[in-house]
Amino acid sequence: MLYLVGLGLGDAKDITVKGLEVVRRCSRVYLEAYTSVLTVGKEALEEFYGRELILADRDLVELEAEEILKEADTSDVAFLVVGDPFGATTHSDLVLRAVHAGISYRVVHNASIMNAVGCCGLQLYSFGETVSIVFWDDDWKPESFYDKIKKNRSMGLHSLCLLDIKVKEQSIENLMRGRKVYEPPRFMSVSQAAGQLLEFTLPTRVVSTGLTEDTLCVGVARVGAEDQVIRTATLRQLGSCDLGPPLHSLVVTGRLHPLEVDMLRLSAAPDALAHLEVEDSSTS
Amino acid sequence: MLYLVGLGLGDAKDITVKGLEVVRRCSRVYLEAYTSVLTVGKEALEEFYGRELILADRDLVELEAEEILKEADTSDVAFLVVGDPFGATTHSDLVLRAVHAGISYRVVHNASIMNAVGCCGLQLYSFGETVSIVFWDDDWKPESFYDKIKKNRSMGLHSLCLLDIKVKEQSIENLMRGRKVYEPPRFMSVSQAAGQLLEFTLPTRVVSTGLTEDTLCVGVARVGAEDQVIRTATLRQLGSCDLGPPLHSLVVTGRLHPLEVDMLRLSAAPDALAHLEVEDSSTS
Repeated sequence: MLYLVGLGLGDAKDITVKGLEVVRRCSRVYLEAYTSVLTVGKEALEEFYGRELILADRDLVELEAEEILKEADTSDVAFLVVGDPFGATTHSDLVLRAVHAGISYRVVHNASIMNAVGCCGLQLYSFGETVSIVFWDDDWKPESFYDKIKKNRSMGLHSLCLLDIKVKEQSIENLMRGRKVYEPPRFMSVSQAAGQLLEFTLPTRVVSTGLTEDTLCVGVARVGAEDQVIRTATLRQLGSCDLGPPLHSLVVTGRLHPLEVDMLRLSAAPDALAHLEVEDSSTS
Repeated sequence: MLYLVGLGLGDAKDITVKGLEVVRRCSRVYLEAYTSVLTVGKEALEEFYGRELILADRDLVELEAEEILKEADTSDVAFLVVGDPFGATTHSDLVLRAVHAGISYRVVHNASIMNAVGCCGLQLYSFGETVSIVFWDDDWKPESFYDKIKKNRSMGLHSLCLLDIKVKEQSIENLMRGRKVYEPPRFMSVSQAAGQLLEFTLPTRVVSTGLTEDTLCVGVARVGAEDQVIRTATLRQLGSCDLGPPLHSLVVTGRLHPLEVDMLRLSAAPDALAHLEVEDSSTS
């Protein structure tokens, strides 16, 4: 049996009781280590689980999946994923390989940012399509994320923006020379994401239902961890904030319900709500 | 401290290790019992947690919240919610009352249907606004859920439909006579939801980007439990399916990626994919 086990978002204790039982009884336990991170490292997980973990990078999962699935028809193998196994990044490919090899699979679900972001006070019902914001570089500045945010906003919906993660990336030079030397991991911060979005508010841009510097956003960092941060602020304010270590995510708000406004006040920067036009709230 | 603890979706062991520690040390533990259900009852939870649970119905949470918050400034109180505390149903109101009473709160996240539905093989990235389908009766047949599904589909997005739950409802007669006699709980099934949606496919309706009897849908039941069911089928086929006990949810698909089609095949009814037009998949 192949078990896909979600680890949740914070630290070692965010695994479910069911998930922990699975980890402790499987013959091999892999830790998917390229699409997200917890606030604790592999060693802390190994100590709490009482099991040795095998790091699974992208190459292993995508190119050598048969290694992970070896003997999973006769014994139990666990594949651990930060968040939920079918959260932001799906592992459909691994599941399909297992099924086609005659191996059963089971999922142990957990929180992922896709639902836990509700902690900021915005209703999950009122989110549109999820958006990925990738790192811009000098030569490549894709803008499709902006179109999705605009579309969501035109319907009054909030946009959850998942921020880019670069793990085990090679420099062009190392890639061309075939050197397996990797750059340090990079995690996009809320201020970097806000900085890229602020470029769309420049006067040289055609602005339709789009963003302004005063658009209300919510930056979240390390959701579910002891030191989680939720910061409600204008896009401009978030452009110069520091929410600390990864992971970060950014929400661009759509139309706000008064109860959402009341919740956002709990985490609002000074003046953040000054430009906000909402219906009067009876509870504020 | 007020702890809002998500219980996940299946049974008692879907609580996180962190959540279980909270439950075991709090002085009072409430179980929110009106917006969702696990596959096990209060007694099974009490036995596994080793704690007595106080059932919190809608009246208690909405009208007598101060009862829940009593002494939470000096001791620890836990409020347990099936799924995630900020999942499909938010408990913003309770949080705001706590904060305004000077009581700190903390959230222990867990899976909710909003992210766990990814287990059907559809990418969470490709879902639009979440939809609630309510029970129709003779006098009241709201159609707003259909408009949202149409809007999502026009953008190629999938629609997660959360299905109505009626707990502690009174009949009109009992309500008028002031008798606190409640009807048996009702949980909308996938076939009931499909039945209501099929009414929009009748020839008397104007169909635009809308549904047909052959629209591919996915019915899910008891996600996360041992006996979970995932059934990919046409809307017509789902109209006569029986996926067993609650809870059920329904997904109306939008534009499908070949990898999504491959995943849907794992749970597809015979002929369900016959009408499907998708790009050729290299992996199928």
